[in-house]
Amino acid sequence: MSERRYDPTHGEWVTVATGRQDRIYKPAAAACPLCPTRAAHEPTEIPRGHFEIAVFDNRFPSLSPRPPEPAIPGTDLVPVEPAYGHCEVVVFTDDHDATLADVGVARVHLLVEAWARRVADLGADPGVRYVLPFENKGEAVGVTLHHPHGQIYAYPDVPPRPAREIAAARAHHDRTGRCVFCDVVAAEAGGVREVLAGEHFVAGVPPWARFPYEVDIWSRAHVPSLPELAPEARADLARVLARVLAGYDRYFDVRTSYLLGIHAATTDGADRDVTHLHVEICPPHRGGGKLKYLAGSETFGGAFLTDVAPEVAAERLRAACADATAPA
Amino acid sequence: MSERRYDPTHGEWVTVATGRQDRIYKPAAAACPLCPTRAAHEPTEIPRGHFEIAVFDNRFPSLSPRPPEPAIPGTDLVPVEPAYGHCEVVVFTDDHDATLADVGVARVHLLVEAWARRVADLGADPGVRYVLPFENKGEAVGVTLHHPHGQIYAYPDVPPRPAREIAAARAHHDRTGRCVFCDVVAAEAGGVREVLAGEHFVAGVPPWARFPYEVDIWSRAHVPSLPELAPEARADLARVLARVLAGYDRYFDVRTSYLLGIHAATTDGADRDVTHLHVEICPPHRGGGKLKYLAGSETFGGAFLTDVAPEVAAERLRAACADATAPA
Repeated sequence: MSERRYDPTHGEWVTVATGRQDRIYKPAAAACPLCPTRAAHEPTEIPRGHFEIAVFDNRFPSLSPRPPEPAIPGTDLVPVEPAYGHCEVVVFTDDHDATLADVGVARVHLLVEAWARRVADLGADPGVRYVLPFENKGEAVGVTLHHPHGQIYAYPDVPPRPAREIAAARAHHDRTGRCVFCDVVAAEAGGVREVLAGEHFVAGVPPWARFPYEVDIWSRAHVPSLPELAPEARADLARVLARVLAGYDRYFDVRTSYLLGIHAATTDGADRDVTHLHVEICPPHRGGGKLKYLAGSETFGGAFLTDVAPEVAAERLRAACADATAPA
Repeated sequence: MSERRYDPTHGEWVTVATGRQDRIYKPAAAACPLCPTRAAHEPTEIPRGHFEIAVFDNRFPSLSPRPPEPAIPGTDLVPVEPAYGHCEVVVFTDDHDATLADVGVARVHLLVEAWARRVADLGADPGVRYVLPFENKGEAVGVTLHHPHGQIYAYPDVPPRPAREIAAARAHHDRTGRCVFCDVVAAEAGGVREVLAGEHFVAGVPPWARFPYEVDIWSRAHVPSLPELAPEARADLARVLARVLAGYDRYFDVRTSYLLGIHAATTDGADRDVTHLHVEICPPHRGGGKLKYLAGSETFGGAFLTDVAPEVAAERLRAACADATAPA
């Protein structure tokens, strides 16, 4: 079963994909499906003996270009649709034991290029309206495969959170005539919550951070999406991202778990005056080895609580990023 | 620091409460602050040698009736407000080793009465617009105190998720002239996703379940909030809730972790034609000892994926609830 069901009590679609339940769960390193194929009789997902970045269709997709017919009939109250879309896996390196924080700026740059190309390609599908590249890293956020990798989801609609972001940006634009993210960059760049300043991107803990050590990376210029990013800006994003991730590892003194997502424009060309490329990175850590959980207030209220002042988190991460040896 | 900061990029408030970082973290049972006071020189939070239900102000609140002045100045872009509100702790029993699933129907009934009274009292504060009773249970959802307890938050506004729920219900009402939850009850009661049928409440896995074994408990009648619930309906809610929780423990064969929240009307009397009392219970389990994590699609997309068909989850939980020994 793989289908989208509409929740009329919240006005959102939920995807039920039972095939995902069988996905590979924490395999031994020797059985890693994301490692290069070393013996012809034991192929992994990647039929090469060596690679830099590999992108392929997720074998356990929740959204697919040829989704099955829904298992239950839709109703006027609860419409049901085939789960159309794309789910891709992006492997960052053939080194099973590396992480994105230590593969080096050149490889992160190649990843930015790969993301941009996949966003453009998937966005060209008229059945797709939003493309979300993301990485779930570490057991603390539930990762089931340790080989360094991310994912790209191409949704048939604008999913709820980007939709709210666009609505908020539209409201701000209606009120002020400006892009809200351009205003955020103007307010935050060079300020107490800045973590790292690149030429084209600035990283900072947003004043409203939902996770204690959340870092957002904002394009300084009003660029709606990755494919429109100039070559020198792509290189700068790679430098800033690599350094922020290295800074996390230095500050927490572990290979830091996090969720990373890229928010950008819809793929149908709408709302480009208010959509502004940015990366959000949310580690679940709140310090001292303790984790931040999303509990009652976040789950049922949607009301986030954090325990660390964003100004303090920024000061700590700024120092850690400055100290971190820049990966080559 | 305890203050609310507005996120203009999503149109939501986030609360920064740094005092919470010092909250008591997994104390030994002998140092439990929620146990009865057994020796005068070692008082716990509860100055009694025995109690049934205890309710008191959270010592590490994120919202409080006398919040400090904000530490940073607000701006037109990012308004900042004192974190006004109330955070209460509700202790379900003086037995440190019990859980809400095994305290018995009589105690759950007393809890429903306590919730109703606190919702009425807190809602009478003109500075409060929404009261959310919830329980975070188990280490899997990050609980730091094991003594069985829940919490009540009284917010100065309608928090984001209830606000979206009310907006969706309003849209449904505008389109159909009916309450969306009344329609859900009509569609789900007695159907394949029903888990347990009480006289006044019905429990079921919603067709759009966000967690694989989510169970919602809906009032059959259009009742906006707990204080308006008739005495016999309160007793029925207690019976249904106690049995669902016992069914979880039977099905998963462990003391099941979950998040539980109660959605109801705002406290200012608005939208009562579309607000309809219901309980949501979300265990993080997806079967076989594996947990459901909220990862990239949920966090950055707001797009939930689940691995278990709601019809299958309902069948399993229906059987488990039928088999579970009803707590006395």
